[in-house]
Amino acid sequence: MKQKRFFLEESQIPKQWYNIQAEMPNKPLPIKHPGTGAVMGPEDLYPIFAEECCRQELNQKDVWIDIPEKVREMYTYYRSTPLVRAYGLEEALDTPAHIYFKNESVSPVGSHKLNSALAQAYYLKQEGVTNVTTETGAGQWGAALSYAARLFGLEAAVYQVKISYQQKPYRRSMMQLFGAQVTASPSMSTRAGKDILTATPNHQGSLGTAISEAIELAQTTPNCKYSLGSVLSHVSLHQTVIGLEAEKQMEMAGEYPDEIYAAFGGGSNFSGIAFPFMRHTINEGRKTRYIAVEPTACPKLTKGKFDYDFGDEAGYTPLLPMYTLGHDFRPANIHAGGLRYHGAGVIVSQLLKDGLMEAMDVEQLDVFKAAELFAKSEGIIPAPESGHAIAGVIKRALECKKSGEKKVLLFNLSGHGLIDMTAYDEYLSGNMMNFPMK
Amino acid sequence: MKQKRFFLEESQIPKQWYNIQAEMPNKPLPIKHPGTGAVMGPEDLYPIFAEECCRQELNQKDVWIDIPEKVREMYTYYRSTPLVRAYGLEEALDTPAHIYFKNESVSPVGSHKLNSALAQAYYLKQEGVTNVTTETGAGQWGAALSYAARLFGLEAAVYQVKISYQQKPYRRSMMQLFGAQVTASPSMSTRAGKDILTATPNHQGSLGTAISEAIELAQTTPNCKYSLGSVLSHVSLHQTVIGLEAEKQMEMAGEYPDEIYAAFGGGSNFSGIAFPFMRHTINEGRKTRYIAVEPTACPKLTKGKFDYDFGDEAGYTPLLPMYTLGHDFRPANIHAGGLRYHGAGVIVSQLLKDGLMEAMDVEQLDVFKAAELFAKSEGIIPAPESGHAIAGVIKRALECKKSGEKKVLLFNLSGHGLIDMTAYDEYLSGNMMNFPMK
Repeated sequence: MKQKRFFLEESQIPKQWYNIQAEMPNKPLPIKHPGTGAVMGPEDLYPIFAEECCRQELNQKDVWIDIPEKVREMYTYYRSTPLVRAYGLEEALDTPAHIYFKNESVSPVGSHKLNSALAQAYYLKQEGVTNVTTETGAGQWGAALSYAARLFGLEAAVYQVKISYQQKPYRRSMMQLFGAQVTASPSMSTRAGKDILTATPNHQGSLGTAISEAIELAQTTPNCKYSLGSVLSHVSLHQTVIGLEAEKQMEMAGEYPDEIYAAFGGGSNFSGIAFPFMRHTINEGRKTRYIAVEPTACPKLTKGKFDYDFGDEAGYTPLLPMYTLGHDFRPANIHAGGLRYHGAGVIVSQLLKDGLMEAMDVEQLDVFKAAELFAKSEGIIPAPESGHAIAGVIKRALECKKSGEKKVLLFNLSGHGLIDMTAYDEYLSGNMMNFPMK
Repeated sequence: MKQKRFFLEESQIPKQWYNIQAEMPNKPLPIKHPGTGAVMGPEDLYPIFAEECCRQELNQKDVWIDIPEKVREMYTYYRSTPLVRAYGLEEALDTPAHIYFKNESVSPVGSHKLNSALAQAYYLKQEGVTNVTTETGAGQWGAALSYAARLFGLEAAVYQVKISYQQKPYRRSMMQLFGAQVTASPSMSTRAGKDILTATPNHQGSLGTAISEAIELAQTTPNCKYSLGSVLSHVSLHQTVIGLEAEKQMEMAGEYPDEIYAAFGGGSNFSGIAFPFMRHTINEGRKTRYIAVEPTACPKLTKGKFDYDFGDEAGYTPLLPMYTLGHDFRPANIHAGGLRYHGAGVIVSQLLKDGLMEAMDVEQLDVFKAAELFAKSEGIIPAPESGHAIAGVIKRALECKKSGEKKVLLFNLSGHGLIDMTAYDEYLSGNMMNFPMK
């Protein structure tokens, strides 16, 4: 019988995260103060984030960073996640390629986001913070942080992008069930939200607006800090647990990936699966391709420019050196709410600039076609975000079929789509568009 | 670090199902023809079900029945499912009891139902059948059979209980995504449906109406058979893979359950977790309690009578010797659609009559209170059906807190509730009732 799933022993679950910043050939450029333009150090970020996260954010020295024991204990609730050989998909495509996926959708909240939420909630609690705010698009990050906050006894308030709040009511319910306060953004509950709604009535929201509102709420609430689910370097750091596990599991499967695919929003799931493998490219020259797959409707990597820009719509965040479409970019209302962000993290931006990784874009209809085939052949209904990675892999696997190449392709299934069934309904009914109205 | 999850090696996944019929002190009474009242043998059922399932249904001889290799291969897609020590829940309850749950919600379709769907679809395919019909309540079984049918290349048509079809549109979408035709029952597409709607306009449907329609469609379609997701003995047989795994996993945890809890609809998930342990009670006199937890709104075990009754509303099925509320019983519209069935399987009915197991009932509000606590302490949002088992365990764990007893409690988490968030919304909003209008 063919072995399909690979798990690690509890003792093999990583005890450290991998900090690629310490090994990059060109370090990311510094981040700058939004008002003065001065280079910022970790202390300058303390008022916003957990202090340990600020230090991790700008740590270009330590290759390995210890995972706190309490966080590792929480990881064992759902980790290791399975590495799966996608025999069903291979057969459906009739490809000589070997396809593997890391299944992060098995986490209690349904996505990889919990890997960083647990760490951030832990550090906040350790540092005596009592309240936390955050933003969320499709709700994967919001659900993860709501649950993590609950576990560590923090009050949580989440601003959810308005279009997703409306499209995905079930994920709002999840957050509320875990005890979080959820508000659709832009809202009239913050100065930033009011300004945005005055300037642009009927604004459907973006991660940029939700971040502005969440930061403002944190700054105007006693003993409250803000938490972000992607883009930032410390979030990518926490996600490396994915790739570190996958590396050991690929060894169990007796193969090594030629190409690694992940959906790209701000960069956290891509970084998580890719960076641990990329260290062998950086240090040993191992030839592996790393491909970020983004929506055509929000093409920061393939069509954006590398520049300093704000991380949010209102301009509250530090200036980040990154590939960006402009912080006031308003993407079409595609169903992959988690990928509707205007910029890429600073590490990934530098890696792309240096040619260590690649990017491709796919249109919404191709994403859902790929997701449908995956659901029918593997039984798992993917999140629309994760569907982007699948679309990239399928495209490549079909090329392999033509050329006869037996490439080993690995992708990250960042989350399941059980909360996204309205999107699938729209797809099945034939009413889906590649660029739905803003 | 405390170990929380226990998995089996792929080689330890059961190769045989456990057939409790062969070891019961009193065998189930025979089933009878709906028209003539004559005792029926396996051949009499061939026109309805896969022939191998008919033989399994009435097999009172073989203790162990081989799982076909192809089905075992499919099992490895998601099995073993984890056995989990619920440290979070224990802490929240401050109980000396040790609580374990078998997490069947990790199957691709979100519940234990796939264990039997794969077997039934396999046998149908083997026997040259091309089309399959079935009924579903909340949609867990329908989703499982739709996926299994897809895997084995069968056309599937599902009748879903109307109230669930309306309450849980996402699960309908899942079935459609897997390629199944889904119809709300009662419908005007069958004679049975028409008769029911004429006699009772605005009938909200029940498993009994959906079964009638599905059987009729099978009988009027060329090369089509019918498949059932619970109640019948061969379904319970397939589900014993749950308890057989759990037995080995409890050994890994170094404990043995004093009491085993499972939600009760027709009996398949209860049988699955309980029967493999019960064989030690039957054969070695091991003192273990087996507790089926049913909704107060559909109390066949605690308030029904033991009698011959039909399995469906229209009276198409054989007469079954079982605890029943009457085949035309119309339960309140509680959110646990999977538990709104009027009767219990013949094996479980005999076991209850003989005192080998017990039953208790819980009200809807207590179920959701229990489910909320479980979600907050373990991170997994349970299906309302599974919430019944949790409510039973919590009640017992709180008694243990009072008495100081260190009981080992095991329950089956039969499915997750991510598709049931409207129910949680209703609960959180304070509008939920114990007996919602019929």
